[in-house]
Amino acid sequence: MIGILLVTHGEFGEEIKRSAELIIGPISNCSAISLNRDDSITNLKDEVEETLESLNKGEGVIVLVDLVGGSPFNVCSVILKKRRNFKLLSGLNLSMIVECAMMRDSLNLEGLTQQCKQTGINSVVEVNP
Amino acid sequence: MIGILLVTHGEFGEEIKRSAELIIGPISNCSAISLNRDDSITNLKDEVEETLESLNKGEGVIVLVDLVGGSPFNVCSVILKKRRNFKLLSGLNLSMIVECAMMRDSLNLEGLTQQCKQTGINSVVEVNP
Repeated sequence: MIGILLVTHGEFGEEIKRSAELIIGPISNCSAISLNRDDSITNLKDEVEETLESLNKGEGVIVLVDLVGGSPFNVCSVILKKRRNFKLLSGLNLSMIVECAMMRDSLNLEGLTQQCKQTGINSVVEVNP
Repeated sequence: MIGILLVTHGEFGEEIKRSAELIIGPISNCSAISLNRDDSITNLKDEVEETLESLNKGEGVIVLVDLVGGSPFNVCSVILKKRRNFKLLSGLNLSMIVECAMMRDSLNLEGLTQQCKQTGINSVVEVNP
């Protein structure tokens, strides 16, 4: 099973996982890592690397970060350079995690990444009456 | 000042606001409403309407919901039909709330909505090494 790792400023990664679970039920092999105000970047890097190891069951891990350019993004980008078995997407929202969790048994890591990216883009909709 | 209202499944609206505040500091005139498992849809509707009233200082309110088709989206869509002074976007992510908070003094409600929508779409990026 492809792993799912959420890395965010603050605790919203954990909360968005809980919100997704309100909709689709428990999401296994999925972890959230938070970066808070006084946290060390070195510790964040170590935690991401350790968590990737535990989430990777052979089919890889998709990593969803909150936004481009912050520390979660930067740390994961550096780690990505050294590894082939994970993918990194920014712009984490609820549709993306729901899609990831529901589709990961039907797609390989590359396919899941493209599907999740497209879902994220398509989920930003202005609603007119 | 344009108001910002976040309406989500679970508590992640409140947490994504806190995460945004870690990056840009306190965000005033911004509220988050959560829908939890046993909450009533009627209560959610009342809470959204009351909060819109308190957030609207004359320049309107931008409402960001988590995804298309859930109860937060459905309730806000119904309310939108009766009002002209707010805009509704789905796909809430961290870039969108940061952009809203930083740009709302420079744009009117329509301009802010378009800017926030484009930011949301552009924030979903696959990072390649």
